[in-house]
Amino acid sequence: MSNLVKEFNDYRSKMNEVILSKDNLVIKRLWNLDTNTYAEGALSTQTKEMLGLVASMVLRCDDCIKYHLGKCHELGITTAQMYEIFAVANIVGGTIVIPHTRRAAEYWEELIANN
Amino acid sequence: MSNLVKEFNDYRSKMNEVILSKDNLVIKRLWNLDTNTYAEGALSTQTKEMLGLVASMVLRCDDCIKYHLGKCHELGITTAQMYEIFAVANIVGGTIVIPHTRRAAEYWEELIANN
Amino acid sequence: MSNLVKEFNDYRSKMNEVILSKDNLVIKRLWNLDTNTYAEGALSTQTKEMLGLVASMVLRCDDCIKYHLGKCHELGITTAQMYEIFAVANIVGGTIVIPHTRRAAEYWEELIANN
Amino acid sequence: MSNLVKEFNDYRSKMNEVILSKDNLVIKRLWNLDTNTYAEGALSTQTKEMLGLVASMVLRCDDCIKYHLGKCHELGITTAQMYEIFAVANIVGGTIVIPHTRRAAEYWEELIANN
Amino acid sequence: MSNLVKEFNDYRSKMNEVILSKDNLVIKRLWNLDTNTYAEGALSTQTKEMLGLVASMVLRCDDCIKYHLGKCHELGITTAQMYEIFAVANIVGGTIVIPHTRRAAEYWEELIANN
Amino acid sequence: MSNLVKEFNDYRSKMNEVILSKDNLVIKRLWNLDTNTYAEGALSTQTKEMLGLVASMVLRCDDCIKYHLGKCHELGITTAQMYEIFAVANIVGGTIVIPHTRRAAEYWEELIANN
Repeated sequence: MSNLVKEFNDYRSKMNEVILSKDNLVIKRLWNLDTNTYAEGALSTQTKEMLGLVASMVLRCDDCIKYHLGKCHELGITTAQMYEIFAVANIVGGTIVIPHTRRAAEYWEELIANN
Repeated sequence: MSNLVKEFNDYRSKMNEVILSKDNLVIKRLWNLDTNTYAEGALSTQTKEMLGLVASMVLRCDDCIKYHLGKCHELGITTAQMYEIFAVANIVGGTIVIPHTRRAAEYWEELIANN
Repeated sequence: MSNLVKEFNDYRSKMNEVILSKDNLVIKRLWNLDTNTYAEGALSTQTKEMLGLVASMVLRCDDCIKYHLGKCHELGITTAQMYEIFAVANIVGGTIVIPHTRRAAEYWEELIANN
Repeated sequence: MSNLVKEFNDYRSKMNEVILSKDNLVIKRLWNLDTNTYAEGALSTQTKEMLGLVASMVLRCDDCIKYHLGKCHELGITTAQMYEIFAVANIVGGTIVIPHTRRAAEYWEELIANN
Repeated sequence: MSNLVKEFNDYRSKMNEVILSKDNLVIKRLWNLDTNTYAEGALSTQTKEMLGLVASMVLRCDDCIKYHLGKCHELGITTAQMYEIFAVANIVGGTIVIPHTRRAAEYWEELIANN
Repeated sequence: MSNLVKEFNDYRSKMNEVILSKDNLVIKRLWNLDTNTYAEGALSTQTKEMLGLVASMVLRCDDCIKYHLGKCHELGITTAQMYEIFAVANIVGGTIVIPHTRRAAEYWEELIANN
């Protein structure tokens, strides 16, 4: 696993553990629900992960972007498809999305280099 | 055409004409580019319109939502699929997306009632 | 009930019914969870509703603001307290919160006039 | 005065009066400070109003946009200049700014028609 | 003092000094006003700091979150109360608030470990 | 060139190259359009860069801020003028803009120290 990917996953796991150890029921249930949201349904998991990614991009949440990039990579989204998602995000959200696109592109390069 | 749909389309056309009459080159080119963004490519037009919709929902732009709802309806997105897009938007964007989901649901009802 | 309050509640009920009739499990569960979030706990319901209000104000969601204003009114928040919440929202979120504060103030006047 | 302009100004005045009558010191002082922000200084009032406008556009606050459009009109900003401000806002903020640009264009037409 | 807390406070002090040395009156007065906003009034300082925290969380400003976490810690907010604030922020603002909640949780751990 | 400025420029160049190598037409054209937006026109390049900066500040995009700070510096904006732009951004966008103002002030110091 590349540096960026490993760092992201490690920090995420460590802090999720801290948060869940506090037993806040609303947070626990929201996180379960979050997982359910991307399950196969009337739309495929692949489509839903792309929706989650574009939503994260226009809201400019780098860690959310990384998470969905990882999922999209696992699900076989190609680089050409990925850049069309980036294009929608940049057009809808404007040039303020560009710096986030740079970090997304960097993370994506690491994901495809490691597989 | 229903009231909401007609009102939205009429105001949109009227004001687009005013704006384009001013001959601002950047705005004209951005609008052309916007159209190109949703063209068939590595991703289907249908997928891209869904991406545009979910992005509009989390950014809470009612008119952008209406525009993409219209496009999704033309492209044959079903009601079950639509509500899965709504679900992603509500989970990613939180409960502040709910009022926009209400207006989206109302507009969608008019679109499907008018076939 | 005043006009603004009745209109808000009626539209909200009507559209919630439409949305829930589509049986999207994620949306249903998110809405249940939303209700639980404001239940009495380590913080009082009153404090939580104030938190929900200020969050809605800085995110500039007029309908979310109306909802929490109604709840705060039921729970006995005073006008002096309410304007201190408005002050926090305007300082944190800036002058773009002012137009939303105007609509919040109008709605609050109707709530206190009717009780 | 046109309809849109009069309506905006009337509602603004009426609600400002309500809010100020509650004597919340933080809000009062923030509003005074807001006025000072646009005073002649190292930058001209004209430049500052343009800054206030573009900030309001990318934050998508229609009432804030109307306010600064009124000020820019008083200060002699031309239509060609105005559309270049719109262009910056649309490029930086993306196509979600378009619906707000439509409403801004409509308001601007009324401002220039009445003078 | 822990690393994260010290780093945050040091950078904040250093840059505040730079900014204030430029004698911009609007910025100086806004910062004074910011301090007044959280003073004891119709609402307690504790409640106001919780309001400031939840507002910072839904607006996803990590440094603002750290600042209010520090204040809440000084004022005796418990971990159970803190996680109920986190829950409101995550429900209102959606799953994009989760990465900010992770960093908030990490900072909170350091605050409580050092006291 | 200072550290912050060099780091920003290097990363930006490296990732722009990666992104452009993927030949996504929409992204390429958006980036060209972005350049055109700030060209001399009815408004001067200087005014447009200030507009781009204030828009980036209220949208709280640190990298966008750095980019426009660099341009403003090249175009001869003074420190007094710069802090009036910061003031508008802080008033319109609220105290959540303060941490971004700190980083902007730090970057500005490096720009003026190196020239």
